[in-house]
Amino acid sequence: MNLSSKLLENTVEVFATLPGIGKKTALRLALHLLQTEDTEVTEFCETILKMKKHIQFCTSCHNIADDETCSICQSPKRDKTTICVVESIKEVMAIENTEQFNGVYHVLGGVISPIEGVGPNQLNIDSLLDRIEKEQTKELIMAISPTIEGETTIFYISKQLKESSVKISTIARGVSFGGELEYADELTLGRSILSRVTYKK
Amino acid sequence: MNLSSKLLENTVEVFATLPGIGKKTALRLALHLLQTEDTEVTEFCETILKMKKHIQFCTSCHNIADDETCSICQSPKRDKTTICVVESIKEVMAIENTEQFNGVYHVLGGVISPIEGVGPNQLNIDSLLDRIEKEQTKELIMAISPTIEGETTIFYISKQLKESSVKISTIARGVSFGGELEYADELTLGRSILSRVTYKK
Repeated sequence: MNLSSKLLENTVEVFATLPGIGKKTALRLALHLLQTEDTEVTEFCETILKMKKHIQFCTSCHNIADDETCSICQSPKRDKTTICVVESIKEVMAIENTEQFNGVYHVLGGVISPIEGVGPNQLNIDSLLDRIEKEQTKELIMAISPTIEGETTIFYISKQLKESSVKISTIARGVSFGGELEYADELTLGRSILSRVTYKK
Repeated sequence: MNLSSKLLENTVEVFATLPGIGKKTALRLALHLLQTEDTEVTEFCETILKMKKHIQFCTSCHNIADDETCSICQSPKRDKTTICVVESIKEVMAIENTEQFNGVYHVLGGVISPIEGVGPNQLNIDSLLDRIEKEQTKELIMAISPTIEGETTIFYISKQLKESSVKISTIARGVSFGGELEYADELTLGRSILSRVTYKK
């Protein structure tokens, strides 16, 4: 693309490094900023830099936080004896949006994946085991993607907790609410029949 | 959205002010920057601020430029006697990408639109008339959108140049190349018959 300005070209290039943003969208964003008030653009950049500089990860659950511990771990209303184990902060947000969970979280930072060179030591598993010991956790809910890597991670964590009295559960897997059965994939449909739930005895 | 961090929330909000970026995409971009190296994020912001601070508008054609005059006006290879009149710098880029035009440009900064309160004085029309007088322009190509506002603008400029010897043309309007006739809109198809081009005499 010939943009007749190196400064604009550079801005287009940095925008195009963002996920899901191609050259054309990057150009539109750059041109938008070009026509925006100076103060607004400065605020835009300062907000990003401020987040980058001051954001922390909760020392207890590894969720993002503005302080040393996140607002969920700090809240006296949350049930500290139930820990929901998730891969990343995105899942924390997704589950929080359902408003169906009142316990606390533990962010692993990924799943065990030998192909990608991610072993248990690269994940926040040790700190989870520490927490369970210290905080008298009653239940661990595994909200991990039902993939081979996810299942491996669940298996590994359960193995570490064999001697512990903590209860371990996984979130329910089956056909989606509102989904048509004929479009459900074979594996999900097959498993949902095997792990059927009693409706009337 | 409950993001458990005010810093992240603020970043999502500033991203969501960009055109075509909703809250969900903004969150994805913010989370991406959160996982990106500090130096890269700093570079991202500095590139934007640098563009905003140093970019100029060409004193001759009002195109964006890194210097006082843009690279197109500076180029000795361009034919200075043909000026292509466009609404914004986006059209300059689009026409430059076709590699079919070797003249120079004049960016109006919009079109006359009484509804939106844009009169001839808000546009770069005076500087265009000055240029035509000074630079011995031979032809003015109107590459303006064929809307009511666009036609009004073309009409206004031609009226100002009634006494001048400059030739005025508009870019060809008709059915698109590669388009199916049956899907062309009525107005375009009707006009394209009226302004038919001789193929064989």
